[in-house]
This record gives sequence, structure tokens and C-alpha cells, in this order.
Amino acid sequence: MATVRLIADEEASEAVRAVFDDIRTTRGSDFVNNFWRALACDPVQLASVWAEVKAVMVAPGTLDPLTREMLYIAVSVTNGCSYCIHSHTAAARAKGLTDAAHGEMLAVIGLAAKTNQLVNALQVPVDPEFQA
Amino acid sequence: MATVRLIADEEASEAVRAVFDDIRTTRGSDFVNNFWRALACDPVQLASVWAEVKAVMVAPGTLDPLTREMLYIAVSVTNGCSYCIHSHTAAARAKGLTDAAHGEMLAVIGLAAKTNQLVNALQVPVDPEFQA
Amino acid sequence: MATVRLIADEEASEAVRAVFDDIRTTRGSDFVNNFWRALACDPVQLASVWAEVKAVMVAPGTLDPLTREMLYIAVSVTNGCSYCIHSHTAAARAKGLTDAAHGEMLAVIGLAAKTNQLVNALQVPVDPEFQA
Amino acid sequence: MATVRLIADEEASEAVRAVFDDIRTTRGSDFVNNFWRALACDPVQLASVWAEVKAVMVAPGTLDPLTREMLYIAVSVTNGCSYCIHSHTAAARAKGLTDAAHGEMLAVIGLAAKTNQLVNALQVPVDPEFQA
Amino acid sequence: MATVRLIADEEASEAVRAVFDDIRTTRGSDFVNNFWRALACDPVQLASVWAEVKAVMVAPGTLDPLTREMLYIAVSVTNGCSYCIHSHTAAARAKGLTDAAHGEMLAVIGLAAKTNQLVNALQVPVDPEFQA
Amino acid sequence: MATVRLIADEEASEAVRAVFDDIRTTRGSDFVNNFWRALACDPVQLASVWAEVKAVMVAPGTLDPLTREMLYIAVSVTNGCSYCIHSHTAAARAKGLTDAAHGEMLAVIGLAAKTNQLVNALQVPVDPEFQA
Repeated sequence: MATVRLIADEEASEAVRAVFDDIRTTRGSDFVNNFWRALACDPVQLASVWAEVKAVMVAPGTLDPLTREMLYIAVSVTNGCSYCIHSHTAAARAKGLTDAAHGEMLAVIGLAAKTNQLVNALQVPVDPEFQA
Repeated sequence: MATVRLIADEEASEAVRAVFDDIRTTRGSDFVNNFWRALACDPVQLASVWAEVKAVMVAPGTLDPLTREMLYIAVSVTNGCSYCIHSHTAAARAKGLTDAAHGEMLAVIGLAAKTNQLVNALQVPVDPEFQA
Repeated sequence: MATVRLIADEEASEAVRAVFDDIRTTRGSDFVNNFWRALACDPVQLASVWAEVKAVMVAPGTLDPLTREMLYIAVSVTNGCSYCIHSHTAAARAKGLTDAAHGEMLAVIGLAAKTNQLVNALQVPVDPEFQA
Repeated sequence: MATVRLIADEEASEAVRAVFDDIRTTRGSDFVNNFWRALACDPVQLASVWAEVKAVMVAPGTLDPLTREMLYIAVSVTNGCSYCIHSHTAAARAKGLTDAAHGEMLAVIGLAAKTNQLVNALQVPVDPEFQA
Repeated sequence: MATVRLIADEEASEAVRAVFDDIRTTRGSDFVNNFWRALACDPVQLASVWAEVKAVMVAPGTLDPLTREMLYIAVSVTNGCSYCIHSHTAAARAKGLTDAAHGEMLAVIGLAAKTNQLVNALQVPVDPEFQA
Repeated sequence: MATVRLIADEEASEAVRAVFDDIRTTRGSDFVNNFWRALACDPVQLASVWAEVKAVMVAPGTLDPLTREMLYIAVSVTNGCSYCIHSHTAAARAKGLTDAAHGEMLAVIGLAAKTNQLVNALQVPVDPEFQA
């Protein structure tokens, strides 16, 4: 189904195995999902994308991990990326997303898309007040 | 610039004026931004969109108002809606978005778009583990 | 502003002039809008795109010209193409789009975008009933 | 497959059942499609989205129901929402979309996307003539 | 699964058969993929889209065929068109896309999407230097 | 106009100045465009995005620099990112993009968007032959 072969643990090169190991350690889980197994067809990209995910989604910061997951979902829903929606909704659930918060998030995501359309159709000029 | 005329206070019908008044009261500010003045060309839609914005963005809920604004921005950035990005970044700033949080939000939004592309290009199949 | 030079009537080659003339004749107007003047940097593409626009938007068919313009607008709004929204809203107005129809069109376009998001976020499986 | 559980009739709460009943009555059919069963995980959102769909897609207005369905499809195709394309193409067929009209609609949708790209690539400035 | 019936060779009209034959001759292969079998529900559109594909993707020009396939993939990935990504990645492979080039292409496509987001979020004004 | 302040040379911190200097050295030009001056509001992100751009767009590889620029443009056009289209069309021109190649690139980008729409509308199932 993928346009590249998914790399199983047994066939992982040393460089790939090192990233898989770090994913497992960082997440405290033995599960390495298909995104990483597909990316592993290019070990350099695998390492660099994982480093960025770790820095942006895992490292401590101002935004809590659940908020980051919700932002990720908002982008993925807008782009219609099915895999991303599945994987990050699961991640958000694991990080405490409740049914109520899920529903509110959907309401915002849906409203934003709708008003984006209205603004586009009306070609509303930016108010000077918004220009900092 | 807009594809419809922006309705000034002076020419607002009673129905439009009622919505403008509620926007002012709800926000505690005299400022009515151009989106509402453009939407006012269709008073029924004006009332219904404002009611939805109030329910989704203003009413108390599980997600705090700043998180909702950030989700709104994430969708608007992905859709490339310039007006929406300007108005909701201003709103988020007014609700306490710090420079640090702004930077982290951008990092997540950028990363999500990038990995959405990689997932699409690789056509990664959804792991059964994500299927709840 | 454009990434290519807009071709004025005086500098048009014979091939470009022939297309400009046909645009004028077809529309019964002397006005040649900037899209064609920008496309004229590639006379072959200019001729082929104009031929397609004539066949799809102007030639008699099942769908009336106003409906076609509204479909064009719906796509252009969703893609956020500012120029296209301006030019085709003007064209739709010229073909009889009323304020009421404009408002209803916007309501559908906005609702569709919102429910597209909800469907994406929920990853709703296609009902067998829809599979013809 | 969905990120939430689809609500069957048997497990529907009273609020959900009321919406399902209204869908059935409004459409004159016993069939409640998966979108509503997924949305039913959030009964408030279910009721509000259904109310909007009824007002925008079903209530009498200037645009006939088939035109509204085609606009819905144009947005859904541009957003690549597979479920929405399936469900609204089925709805359009049920409302009288012929093969000829379907073909013409596709031609407009495809042409609009293509010219949106050309306009974007060329960054064509809006003609003053289009500014009302 | 498709919203129209896929036309098998046996049921192809003369007009459809002529296009199928030209596809086979042009490609030097007996394989006619599903896109053309679905488009065949509208023989006029089938002929016109195939003519455009031949002119744009097959005819000799400045850009080599592999570069054209990669541009096609870049657009299709950004639009999230699963079928298009599958078919054109296969076509690119057949035209010599190596694993290394595939990886680099993905890196560019991913980076572009990410910086598009950052530019949108920051609403960066175009430098006068870029205006030719 | 931007949602953040553009950082001029005079006010650049040491970290920002180091990136600006590297941009100048790498490009052999004194010009630092607005994207970097806007990103400079977050020096960590500035450094990391520049490092990625250098690795993906500048470092030697299989794809020549002009091909990479064209892929970048294809994504940016599809996303409708005006700034990105301006800056990368200028970059492509500087790297040798001819008028003929520009025209062909636009033809591919436009055709891809059009066929993406047709495939979406028709919901064409992926041929088993494309599944490697």
C-alpha cells in the first residue's frame, strides 16, 4: 500500500535501529509505528525527522504536550491526512484528551474552516487595528 | 477590495445593529472588525455566524480561550487565510499568547505540515494499533 | 507584482493578439483582464487555456453559465485564490447572481468546509449505501 | 476505522434519537448515514450541525437543492474529502444530477483548480475593474 | 468504490476505444489504468484530458520527463491525492527515479510545506527585490 | 504587515547575526530577505530552519538546485503561498530557469491540480499494478 517498503526490525540497518531504539526509549513503549518504518527507507531523513519531532513535540516547553497534539491534529485535519489524524488522535487520547475536549476541538476546527471560506469569498481587507 | 460593501454603523439595519451591539458587549470593546461588516451584507448569516463564534470561541468550556485561538490559527495558517491569521493572532496576543508560546505553536504547525507531506508521499498505511 | 510581465496590447505578438481578439469578441467587451495578459508570456499556453475556458465556461451545455461560475467560485474560495474570487464573483454578478443567491452560495461553501473538517477529524467510513 | 464509535440506534440517547428521527422525517427515509452516527458522540454538536445542514441544504431558497449539492461537491473535491464526495454525489444523483451535468461539473471543477494554480504561479494582480 | 462505473475494454464505445488505443500505443504497454477507465464515463472529457496529458507530460520539451513527474508528485502530495501519488510515483520509478532522488524530493516537498506555514503564520511581506 | 517585527541588522542579537552572516556567506550576497528577518523573532527556530534549508536546498545531492527550486514552487503554488512563490521564482530564475521551462513547469502544475480534482471527484480506486 505504501509507495516504499516498510522496514521491519530484522532488516533495519544500524542507523535505522538506533532511531527505532530512541523512539522506543523516548516513548517508553516497544511499538514503532508505520510512519517511522516507511521513513526508514531514507535513514538520514528518518534521523532528522525524528530529531525534529522530539524537539518540537516531546521536549519541555511552554505549551503542554496535549496542546501540541491538538495543534498537530488541527493541521492534519485541514490537510486531510488520514494517517496523521489517526496517529495523533491516538496520541492525544493517551495524553489525556477527553471526549468533551475532543468535541470542543472539533467545533473550533470546523468553525475556523467555515469562516476561512467566508473571509476568502468576501475578500475582507485586514483592519489596521490588527497590524502590529 | 472586498467583494461586498462593508457596512458602517450608520447604515446598519436594526438586525445588523443588534449583532454589532452584542459583539461590542461580549468583547467589552467598541471595535467591530471588518469580517462582521462584510458579513453584514447578509444579516441572517451575520447573526448565525456570530452565534456560532460566541458558542464555540467565547462560551465557557473545557478548552481555555487561548487554546481555542491557537487551534483557530493552526487551521487558518494551513488554509492560508491572511485575514484570519491577522485577526486571530491579535486575539491570541490579547488573551496572553507569549512570544515563546507563539514560537512553539509555529514549530508544531510547521512540523505537522511537513510530516503530513511525508505521510502522503509515502502513503503510509494506518497501524491497526491506532484503530480504536 | 506578477512573476512575469503583463503583456499590453501594443507589445502583443500576432498569436497573442489573436487570442485577445477572440476574448473580446466572445465576451462582447474590449476589456482583457490581467490573467490573460500574464498568461500571454507563454502564447501556446494562453491559446490552450483560453480554448478550455471557452469550451467549459462559455459553450452551451446542461449547466447554465451562472451555475458554472458559482462552481468556479466554490473551488477558488476553497483554494483561497484571491484573484480568481474577484474575477469570477464579478463574472457571476454580471450573469445575474443576486445578493440572496450570493449569500446562500456562501452558506453552502462554508458549511461544506466545516463538515469536511468534521468528517476528516472523525475519519467516518463510507456507507456501503453510497457505493454505486 | 473512525476515531470515535459510531452510535447505533439501540444505544442512542434521547437527544441523539431526536436528531436521528428528524433526519429520517426530513429525508423521508429510514437511512441514517455514518456521518451522523459519528457526530453523535457529541450530541450538542450533532444537533447544531444537523440544524445548519437543514437550514442551508434543505430549506427553501433561491438556489435549487441540486445546485447546492454541486457546490458542496466542488468544495469537497477541492478539499479531497472522500466521504463527503461519496455522500454528496449520491445525494446529487438522487436530486436529478444527470451524467451530462456531472461531466460538466467536473470540467468546471478541474478547470478552476488548474487556473487557480496558474494565477498563483503568476501572481496576477487584481484588475481595478473587478473591485466593486 | 468509484463514483462512476469503470469502463472495461469490452464495453468501450468507439470514441473511448480510440483513446485507450492511443494510450497503449503512446506508452508501449497494454495496461490502461483506472483513471482513464473512470474518465471514460464522459468520452469527450476523456479525449481532452488525454490530449492534455500527452502534450504536457509526454511531448518533447525543455524539462525531462522525470522532472515533470516529480513536479506532478509535488502537487499531488500537497493536495493529498492518494491515487495520483501512487500512479505518478510508479511512473517516476519507471522513468528512473532512484531511492536517493526520491528521498531528496521528499525532503524538498516537506520543507516547502513547513516554510509555507511559517510564512503564512508570520505574514511576511514580499521583499521589493523579488518583484521583477 | 507581518504578525511579528522584522529584525533589522542593527537590532540582531548575536545568535541572529550568526545566522544572517551564514546566509550571506552561503549565498554570496549581502541581501537577507524578509522571511529570515521575521523568523528571527525566534532565534532557535531561525537557526534550525536555516540549517534545514541549507541541507535540503543548498547541499550537493542527486537533484540539481534548479529542480529543487521547481519542486519548492510546485508545493508553494498549490498551497497558494504568495511570498514563497515570489521568493522561489526569483531564486529559480537566478539558477537558470528559462521562460520555456517556466511555462512547462506551469503546465505540469496546472494539469496535476486538474487531474487531482478529477480523480477525487471520481474516487478512482488505486490499480493493483501501482502497489509495489
